[in-house]
Amino acid sequence: MSAGGMGPTLDDRGARSLLRTIPVRKGPDLQWAPAEPPRRNAAMPDARTSGPTAGRKRDPLIEPRVFEAAVRVYARAGWGGFTFDAVAREAGVGKPALYRRWSGGEELLVSALHNLDFPTARDCGSVRADLLDYARQWVHWYRHPDRALAGRRISLDSRARPALAALYEEMINRPRTEAAREITRRAVARGELAPAVRSSTLPDLLVGAMSTHWESTPEGSRARLRRTFPAYAETLVDIILAGAQAMPPRP
Amino acid sequence: MSAGGMGPTLDDRGARSLLRTIPVRKGPDLQWAPAEPPRRNAAMPDARTSGPTAGRKRDPLIEPRVFEAAVRVYARAGWGGFTFDAVAREAGVGKPALYRRWSGGEELLVSALHNLDFPTARDCGSVRADLLDYARQWVHWYRHPDRALAGRRISLDSRARPALAALYEEMINRPRTEAAREITRRAVARGELAPAVRSSTLPDLLVGAMSTHWESTPEGSRARLRRTFPAYAETLVDIILAGAQAMPPRP
Repeated sequence: MSAGGMGPTLDDRGARSLLRTIPVRKGPDLQWAPAEPPRRNAAMPDARTSGPTAGRKRDPLIEPRVFEAAVRVYARAGWGGFTFDAVAREAGVGKPALYRRWSGGEELLVSALHNLDFPTARDCGSVRADLLDYARQWVHWYRHPDRALAGRRISLDSRARPALAALYEEMINRPRTEAAREITRRAVARGELAPAVRSSTLPDLLVGAMSTHWESTPEGSRARLRRTFPAYAETLVDIILAGAQAMPPRP
Repeated sequence: MSAGGMGPTLDDRGARSLLRTIPVRKGPDLQWAPAEPPRRNAAMPDARTSGPTAGRKRDPLIEPRVFEAAVRVYARAGWGGFTFDAVAREAGVGKPALYRRWSGGEELLVSALHNLDFPTARDCGSVRADLLDYARQWVHWYRHPDRALAGRRISLDSRARPALAALYEEMINRPRTEAAREITRRAVARGELAPAVRSSTLPDLLVGAMSTHWESTPEGSRARLRRTFPAYAETLVDIILAGAQAMPPRP
């Protein structure tokens, strides 16, 4: 699909042009494979239907390295220290390679989070499989402390920076919120949940509990948490699902 | 109780001296009163058992104004803009009044959050009453966008500032995490929940879902959310409780 349905809220150097030029986002490197091959959610932007901007040189090996470096620099130094200079140094590439590819820090940072497996709910055939798959993507996400920290920073830094806020909303927050809400809509359509359950409730509970648990664990205990997190996440799925299934149908 | 049980992790200008001098923390201004008068949780620091530092002038009218101003300045300007100058200007008091009371920005900021009704779980007689009371404190917290934003900022800003991190951990995070975990321990003791439920799970789900719901709601829709948040929070309590009650006892 193209990004045409997202509405023209950004100018030409914004998300729409970004959507045409970002490389294809690969599926997350899951710890456990989902029950069946996930189907891409219709709400997710996808660059596959349109080629790279004519004349732009592509080096597929540079981009993953720059994305990792960008998230590392941003997580550690915040927006104040997030410069093309710092990212180029961290990635070991020349600054021109960055200027050829990204219009500015906003585009580079949001592209990096988008391409580094920012968790995205998928259809795995049942509400339990969907929730487990989503939980495992978040477990994987928290294995990379820089990504988790960058994800927290960006929503705060977006407040004073409308260009960053618009790109983040368009590329990350809105499509992923939508994809997560589809878990409940599919469950209702399959007859697994009563229509009384709001589509935001399940992802709020799962993602919220995982992030709160992570944040309230002191740094020194996080190595241990990384080992127990998969089992904790599965318990959360069990509780959330049992609780949602106990909800009476809307009166 | 005194803070003696918290361990000597700070120097004399740190949390232990702060605990002796902060004014008594009043209970939150709840939208709904809890079922019965809450009992103060044993894990919470309390300044009532020790008087103000000898010779320090107290003006009870100044402190609430300074706390509100401090949280406002910090929420808007972050740690970089959080100076005694800016807080004094915002509060309409002289800088000497601040220097007389607080040793520095860390102490002022953490005291402010501590005194401005940072949600704290309490014993209201049953697990459902405890969770509803805690949920309502969070609803109240999110009515003050500056407080909510300050609470998110401080855990990020603490990363590079050990003095702020230690005070935040000692005064806010550790005692409140502990108080929240008591909800489950009391429920297990009352026979309301099976011992299989970990004490962190219920607060992770409740606080996490509320904060995720709040954060993923665009600014423009938050006025509406403020109206629907109490009902949403109550639904969360229902789901969490039904889910936790469905957990089998530990094998």
